[in-house]
Amino acid sequence: MKKLINHVDDVLAQALEGFGSAHADLVRVHRDPTFVTRAAAIRPGKVALISGGGSGHEPMHAGLVGTGMLDAACPGQVFTSPTPDQMLAAAQVVDGGAGVLFIVKNYEGDVMNFDMASEMYEGRHASVLTNDDVAVEDSTWTTGRRGVAGTVIVEKITGAAAEAGAELAALQALGARVNARTRSMGVALTSCTVPAAGRPTFELPEDEMEVGVGIHGEPGRRRVKLQSAEAIAEDMVNAITGDLAPAAGAEILLLVNGFGATPAMELYLMYGGARRLLEAKGVKVARSLVGSYCTSLDMAGCSLTVTALDDELRGLWDAPVHTAALRW
Amino acid sequence: MKKLINHVDDVLAQALEGFGSAHADLVRVHRDPTFVTRAAAIRPGKVALISGGGSGHEPMHAGLVGTGMLDAACPGQVFTSPTPDQMLAAAQVVDGGAGVLFIVKNYEGDVMNFDMASEMYEGRHASVLTNDDVAVEDSTWTTGRRGVAGTVIVEKITGAAAEAGAELAALQALGARVNARTRSMGVALTSCTVPAAGRPTFELPEDEMEVGVGIHGEPGRRRVKLQSAEAIAEDMVNAITGDLAPAAGAEILLLVNGFGATPAMELYLMYGGARRLLEAKGVKVARSLVGSYCTSLDMAGCSLTVTALDDELRGLWDAPVHTAALRW
Repeated sequence: MKKLINHVDDVLAQALEGFGSAHADLVRVHRDPTFVTRAAAIRPGKVALISGGGSGHEPMHAGLVGTGMLDAACPGQVFTSPTPDQMLAAAQVVDGGAGVLFIVKNYEGDVMNFDMASEMYEGRHASVLTNDDVAVEDSTWTTGRRGVAGTVIVEKITGAAAEAGAELAALQALGARVNARTRSMGVALTSCTVPAAGRPTFELPEDEMEVGVGIHGEPGRRRVKLQSAEAIAEDMVNAITGDLAPAAGAEILLLVNGFGATPAMELYLMYGGARRLLEAKGVKVARSLVGSYCTSLDMAGCSLTVTALDDELRGLWDAPVHTAALRW
Repeated sequence: MKKLINHVDDVLAQALEGFGSAHADLVRVHRDPTFVTRAAAIRPGKVALISGGGSGHEPMHAGLVGTGMLDAACPGQVFTSPTPDQMLAAAQVVDGGAGVLFIVKNYEGDVMNFDMASEMYEGRHASVLTNDDVAVEDSTWTTGRRGVAGTVIVEKITGAAAEAGAELAALQALGARVNARTRSMGVALTSCTVPAAGRPTFELPEDEMEVGVGIHGEPGRRRVKLQSAEAIAEDMVNAITGDLAPAAGAEILLLVNGFGATPAMELYLMYGGARRLLEAKGVKVARSLVGSYCTSLDMAGCSLTVTALDDELRGLWDAPVHTAALRW
């Protein structure tokens, strides 16, 4: 295992320490329990948005804490759900009285622990579940579809609405609406390696790739010989549009997301291919994001995410955001 | 070779096409010859900043074209210098009459071709050479030190000054001053693979790393057994501060730069370690940047860059920038 780490037990704590000191203007890292909040005071009356999940998907979620997006993030150990006490403590810090929206990716541990935190939390609260991955219906740690990079889009859009003063019930409905209009699929060229395991999560021969891989290396739809970027993009675009069924002329947001070890050059090449294929299907790529936002440690590969926009969603996507990873 | 590409001959063209369409609000991609310019009109009287070099270091340089930074970038083929006709054509497009500053990394091909373009260009022009890599004095394609990630800092600071109205001679002096106050060093955990070569540029056993590696995989100071992040950071910080010799209490900018296949978690962990070591040496980390800005295709590893700031440089660093890769 080749990683820039010290001891496998210290990876999360030391990465968070570095993150907190690099972005001290934006975030505060709390310990015992561990969570990350905005450094700036949260406007009274604003609904607080909290997400979280296993670490190893950076910048999701701590890198998305800041104005116009999340108020807090609860990182678990690598690929391990955070615990209810983290979520509860985060809620108590960031809830300014207007309530808390928990944004939860659909993994059994995350769902269970956010449910427990919700039961324990006495303030107003609601949840949004993301399950944008069209690759498989059930998976290693998931009943139903997995929540993947579309979560970034749900967080950006609900974050903008919360900043603009939307109330808790409206934010919950908005989050569910964005999730329902969002589909993703990924492909792995290599496995990731969990530090504590010390070896690749799965074996992938030098000439093969995993189509529909999960963000923890869960199996996808099939293992096939490595294909061209064009063929990979076509496979993913077809799976996404086949399921989303965007209307002719629909405006979409296209996210090309790297899994952690994928150079920008390859992501942009994939973006160009995916965009051409989408436009050939009669949809309009109105907004784009290309980069590594929902990663899988050191996995090589990428995912495509498509969100069907409308005027409201496009406006909220365009609204200012200031986090470590997204800023405009 | 596992890459998200189509044919090795099309990698640059297709990546640039995707880049141009993803960032059509920011950049224009020109072909025959190939260069990238700002989409927005350049203010008359502003000195134009042009950089360039072999591709494979994305987002450097095309991802740094935009307000407050570069006016144009000239990408060569992967790890291959751009040609003088690219630079000349870019200069003719972006020079608004106040002249052109060429920002050139110290590699023999880049230096030679920018020199040729300078000789051919009839407008006012000057050049800044970057050579921030302390690892080795001469290298595979370099006489003297290599220009690496410090180039991003030179481009940001001179870009801000150009936007503020600085004249050509002042910008040249400023760029030279930033370069003189900047030092970098990198470490590779894996080789990169040039698409057209199809195999790793160098062999690196599973338990070894290359200390002081160049951004094309050129040899560094030594090949050693893989070390802890702390030991790696100490080695790099000592090399940098030993050479830069910052004054006690000096304010510095610390850039932790990923080489393309390094997850954010590892970069932040390295940042935390490097920052502690720098502060223990009595310098103050006043500004930070953590991410993959000067990459080496799919190399795993990172570099540290330190720039000794002063009030002028800090103010120019903080000035607004709007490019694909840097924005504040």
